[in-house]
Amino acid sequence: MSFDSLLIIGGGLIGSSIARAAKSRAGVSTVWMADKSADVIETIERLGIADGVAEGSAHHFASKADLIIVCVPPGKIAEVAADILPVMKAGSVLSDVGSIKGAVITAMRPHLRDDVSVIPGHPIAGTEFSGPEAGFAELFDHRWCVLTPINPDDPALPKLTAFWEALGSDVAIMDPDRHDTVLATTSHVPHLIAYTLVGTAVDMETVTGDEVVKFSAGGFRDFTRIAASDPVMWRDVFLSNREATLEVVDRFIEDLTALKRAIRWSDGETLLDHFAKTRDIRRRIVESGQDEPNFGRDD
Amino acid sequence: MSFDSLLIIGGGLIGSSIARAAKSRAGVSTVWMADKSADVIETIERLGIADGVAEGSAHHFASKADLIIVCVPPGKIAEVAADILPVMKAGSVLSDVGSIKGAVITAMRPHLRDDVSVIPGHPIAGTEFSGPEAGFAELFDHRWCVLTPINPDDPALPKLTAFWEALGSDVAIMDPDRHDTVLATTSHVPHLIAYTLVGTAVDMETVTGDEVVKFSAGGFRDFTRIAASDPVMWRDVFLSNREATLEVVDRFIEDLTALKRAIRWSDGETLLDHFAKTRDIRRRIVESGQDEPNFGRDD
Ligand SMILES: NC(=O)c1ccc[n+]([C@@H]2O[C@H](COP(=O)([O-])OP(=O)(O)OC[C@H]3O[C@@H](n4cnc5c(N)ncnc54)[C@H](OP(=O)(O)O)[C@@H]3O)[C@@H](O)[C@H]2O)c1
Ligand SMILES: NC(=O)c1ccc[n+]([C@@H]2O[C@H](COP(=O)([O-])OP(=O)(O)OC[C@H]3O[C@@H](n4cnc5c(N)ncnc54)[C@H](OP(=O)(O)O)[C@@H]3O)[C@@H](O)[C@H]2O)c1
Repeated sequence: MSFDSLLIIGGGLIGSSIARAAKSRAGVSTVWMADKSADVIETIERLGIADGVAEGSAHHFASKADLIIVCVPPGKIAEVAADILPVMKAGSVLSDVGSIKGAVITAMRPHLRDDVSVIPGHPIAGTEFSGPEAGFAELFDHRWCVLTPINPDDPALPKLTAFWEALGSDVAIMDPDRHDTVLATTSHVPHLIAYTLVGTAVDMETVTGDEVVKFSAGGFRDFTRIAASDPVMWRDVFLSNREATLEVVDRFIEDLTALKRAIRWSDGETLLDHFAKTRDIRRRIVESGQDEPNFGRDD
Repeated sequence: MSFDSLLIIGGGLIGSSIARAAKSRAGVSTVWMADKSADVIETIERLGIADGVAEGSAHHFASKADLIIVCVPPGKIAEVAADILPVMKAGSVLSDVGSIKGAVITAMRPHLRDDVSVIPGHPIAGTEFSGPEAGFAELFDHRWCVLTPINPDDPALPKLTAFWEALGSDVAIMDPDRHDTVLATTSHVPHLIAYTLVGTAVDMETVTGDEVVKFSAGGFRDFTRIAASDPVMWRDVFLSNREATLEVVDRFIEDLTALKRAIRWSDGETLLDHFAKTRDIRRRIVESGQDEPNFGRDD
């Protein structure tokens, strides 16, 4: 029961990864791709990952596709959806891959149609690289993909679920606001903190940039990888998931202040108690297959 | 001009990694190891990485060794040094691998001898695992090792430098206080922040532990890896490098507060400016070989 034709709007890391996997893994017959940028379209043609491409307007393909997945930056998703919904064919499915869900769905609401299934989504998979050349078919393997259907009983939900499973993902169905709360903790705030710390290090007068680069293997380089992610995407994420982000950040600052106080007063027991409890969550992540221990050999 | 005999006190991750590399790479003839724990000694014997072992007192070997490297937790280094310095032979070298230098050197000072070279060190290499089985000979490859000699003109400095170079490291000679300031930024504060954030996530009432584990691939799992590091070692580090740690943490909180304000007031430009500048430091780390880009494929 796979989708016969797929239109991907936005041919970057995520869009081009879906394109690479859709035919070989999910049995899609025809993959079209659209992007606003001529460069991206040229690269996609060179890579040969689409059966047809459109620079700019995607109306031509949008009127024929069984499934459309919007893969543009979060701040542009609702706009693109509003543009194509009117031309989509009855019975087709519209989805996206944006890292935030609540604000996008609110902005889409006025444009919804009864005869088109709208099932927003978010694959929890990515890298710090952008653009069509950064994509690869295995990106979604063993990663979760969250679907947040507007109508929880949407008859197209099993079909879209099967599509993501074919791409290698486990699928979780969630309420959009719950998605945003959970991801604020597991993704948005970690990115904000990484961006902040790398900025702090760069600005310290007491440490040179050369020293930061040389001695980064002490832990810092993991932060720089996260903080190398696409600035536009992350600006959009923080501005669209403001409340949940600020709530988690405030809790984090409270906790950091408590550990600061423990350091200032040489309260080693408080530090040890805190540091010991965080090991358990690591163990569970490794056990769940969301990370594999490699004894540090390749990082 | 390699050292003929080496005694390693503390047979954990770092000590056992040095043991594995010392003969094959650095031309050492005899490697002895001492540890306070019977379990560790038993494992070392089973692994066959030492020519002789001592559980508890290392005086017997210490009186014969050309080089002694103390590889115990930072809070115990000065104590171990004070215990063995009196029995060391004239002309031998005492070093360590502790992650902090200033406080350890201050505590060692009363025990120094004119006829023993004391050259503390810190290999900027490690993993989140502990114990003798976690060690491996390649741990120091392409990593920096900082040496902070008590006497900058110590005639044994070139020999110890050559030892670490043979183990695969680049060697940097630094003042102990400068080491502690730089490492507060590139290592100590990143660890404190990772410990804090993982604790915050675990304590959020709005998100379950299961959700944190499932959706950790969004960035969080990198923090959990750092926050799985040895609690005792890190407690010692923060208590011993208090001033520099607190200074960097305060700057970080200031910067985070500014970004929080930008999010609250929808100031996208400030966010974008900040996020764009952190990419450059990542590029330099990758170029310097302190990290290799793998397009996210294996993490
Ligand atoms: N990167 C991750 O780790 C990750 C993970 C999960 C989900 N996501 C989500 O995936 C989406 C795409 O992210 P990405 O990492 O793939 O970004 P990307 O590599 O920058 O790709 C986005 C592409 O969309 C194009 N685009 C922008 N506005 C458009 C429009 N109005 N019409 C058509 N194309 C447009 C961009 O062109 P220009 O380059 O010319 O702007 C670019 O080629 C985002 O919503 C993000 O939240 C990302
Ligand atoms: N791990 C890293 O990433 C890293 C990186 C660079 C530098 N370092 C430094 O390396 C040193 C060792 O760290 P590690 O990761 O190798 O720790 P580890 O794996 O826990 O090993 C430390 C070993 O020292 C033993 N020990 C403790 N007190 C002792 C004493 N008084 N006499 C003899 N043995 C004693 C411990 O025995 P018990 O297990 O019975 O306590 C343990 O076997 C620390 O100073 C740390 O700052 C660590």
